[in-house]
Amino acid sequence: MTDALDLLGIFVFAVSGCVVAVRRGFDIVGLVALGTVTGLAGGITRDLLIGEIPPVALREWEWLIVPVVAAVVVALMPRLVERLHHPVLVFDAAGLGLFAAVGASRAVDAPVSVPAAVLVGAISAIGGGLLRDVLAGEVPQIFSADSRLYAIPATIGASIVVLGDEAGLAVTPVEVVAVIVTFVLRMGALRFGWHAPIPRRTVEADHLRSDP
Amino acid sequence: MTDALDLLGIFVFAVSGCVVAVRRGFDIVGLVALGTVTGLAGGITRDLLIGEIPPVALREWEWLIVPVVAAVVVALMPRLVERLHHPVLVFDAAGLGLFAAVGASRAVDAPVSVPAAVLVGAISAIGGGLLRDVLAGEVPQIFSADSRLYAIPATIGASIVVLGDEAGLAVTPVEVVAVIVTFVLRMGALRFGWHAPIPRRTVEADHLRSDP
Amino acid sequence: MTDALDLLGIFVFAVSGCVVAVRRGFDIVGLVALGTVTGLAGGITRDLLIGEIPPVALREWEWLIVPVVAAVVVALMPRLVERLHHPVLVFDAAGLGLFAAVGASRAVDAPVSVPAAVLVGAISAIGGGLLRDVLAGEVPQIFSADSRLYAIPATIGASIVVLGDEAGLAVTPVEVVAVIVTFVLRMGALRFGWHAPIPRRTVEADHLRSDP
Repeated sequence: MTDALDLLGIFVFAVSGCVVAVRRGFDIVGLVALGTVTGLAGGITRDLLIGEIPPVALREWEWLIVPVVAAVVVALMPRLVERLHHPVLVFDAAGLGLFAAVGASRAVDAPVSVPAAVLVGAISAIGGGLLRDVLAGEVPQIFSADSRLYAIPATIGASIVVLGDEAGLAVTPVEVVAVIVTFVLRMGALRFGWHAPIPRRTVEADHLRSDP
Repeated sequence: MTDALDLLGIFVFAVSGCVVAVRRGFDIVGLVALGTVTGLAGGITRDLLIGEIPPVALREWEWLIVPVVAAVVVALMPRLVERLHHPVLVFDAAGLGLFAAVGASRAVDAPVSVPAAVLVGAISAIGGGLLRDVLAGEVPQIFSADSRLYAIPATIGASIVVLGDEAGLAVTPVEVVAVIVTFVLRMGALRFGWHAPIPRRTVEADHLRSDP
Repeated sequence: MTDALDLLGIFVFAVSGCVVAVRRGFDIVGLVALGTVTGLAGGITRDLLIGEIPPVALREWEWLIVPVVAAVVVALMPRLVERLHHPVLVFDAAGLGLFAAVGASRAVDAPVSVPAAVLVGAISAIGGGLLRDVLAGEVPQIFSADSRLYAIPATIGASIVVLGDEAGLAVTPVEVVAVIVTFVLRMGALRFGWHAPIPRRTVEADHLRSDP
């Protein structure tokens, strides 16, 4: 069951990568590559960091087939993908919560510190989209001042799992709560336009360079 | 012998990185760094993914010296490099085939799935060039709609090695076939202008964003 | 003591990442993420390469808290950060030396070649800033023709530690020398405008593409 959810999350993330590739006019190689990276890079980075090597994405063949299927769907049915734009955002929010919770769960079993487990959970959830944007030559969406909350819900979801583990609570109910909280925060951000605060920028900020 | 071919492949890849650095007006640090990344990042990523840590590029000192030599050649003899432009493309195609075959061969010995072994082989071959472009602030050439086939020959070469291994064939002849097929496909793409197909893009594609 | 210096180096590097985030108009997520990446990515990459997994940054919780503190300081006190611009450059130079020396020290204890230990030391020192620039959508400052020496002092510092180890010298005094040399070279570069040489660029260089 978790596996099916994992694969659904990968599929949805991969679709978002493929859509960016189409938007940028990439060829089929770029489409498959960007879909694969977006679907798998978060989990692969998580596994490298916690010493789960080779990463699960390379051990289970289904993990690799899913992004290819996503690429085929986007390449052959662009209008369907468009029409499913809003459902995709819903699934993406679910994937975000799922990856944050599963990632944090795996991290608490590894010899890492408490804040590191939160970070690893958040990276699982947002790492794929981050690398997608870098490879597409764009500044990561999650940093942008006009993006809706994305990394913050993932970090809160991962924190719930890690704190639950510290408190000795039963794993599954805590994970369910974490997924729901992440999902609700992300959907609320999309619905109501919640943004992360933007730090004040002084007039002189442009002159602040580490290498003048 | 394989070692000599490995090092030749690294050299040619490193030259391509150094040439990009010169074209972008980077200083000598950028030249050496981009050459080293282009020559070694594919193999290092491969080794991290399959758990070969430290990567062979860090264990054998020759692997690190070769990119530095490439940087010196490009820095001191820019006209020679220009004149050798076409030979370099030929060697690059050979390096592509060699890295795909060797990478896939190493991956099938690791506990990874069959499609993952193909992916790891392809990453060995194309990873350096990909990171070269990202560090140079360019969208990866292999994604671009006007690029000739590059990742596809590498993926086919890696697939031949992996399928040969699955079929229980002798390793060396299969590797030779894989290198030749990759090389011929890449050279054909350069000669005849073969492109990967470009997915249809609907009018509305620009509105497709994962975060509207 | 080394630990306190480590953490001071992470703090200063993280501040430089946060300052770039403010300059680019990122939101608070971008600020924390870019600070964390800049402070920790060099050390994490070093540890992955030498097989120290999970990386020390994930095992010791202080390492993760420091970039968050840096982000809070930059977000709440932008004018203070501006006023401290020059002190920050001094601390950054000290961090550069410290990371190069500590990174090289850890690498010589791992099964890597002599030039690889130098490379790993240099990556420890410059990797965070490199990834900061890539994530911010900028070409890495250290490659730029108008940057002052940065990677070269780090590489020299790492070389001193590695050569001292090869020569069987006592570790601590060699490390101290390496930090001082790196620091002095970097401060000299800032004071006197030392640049790395820029390779000659021929008229035809623009036509040199690996994929014409």
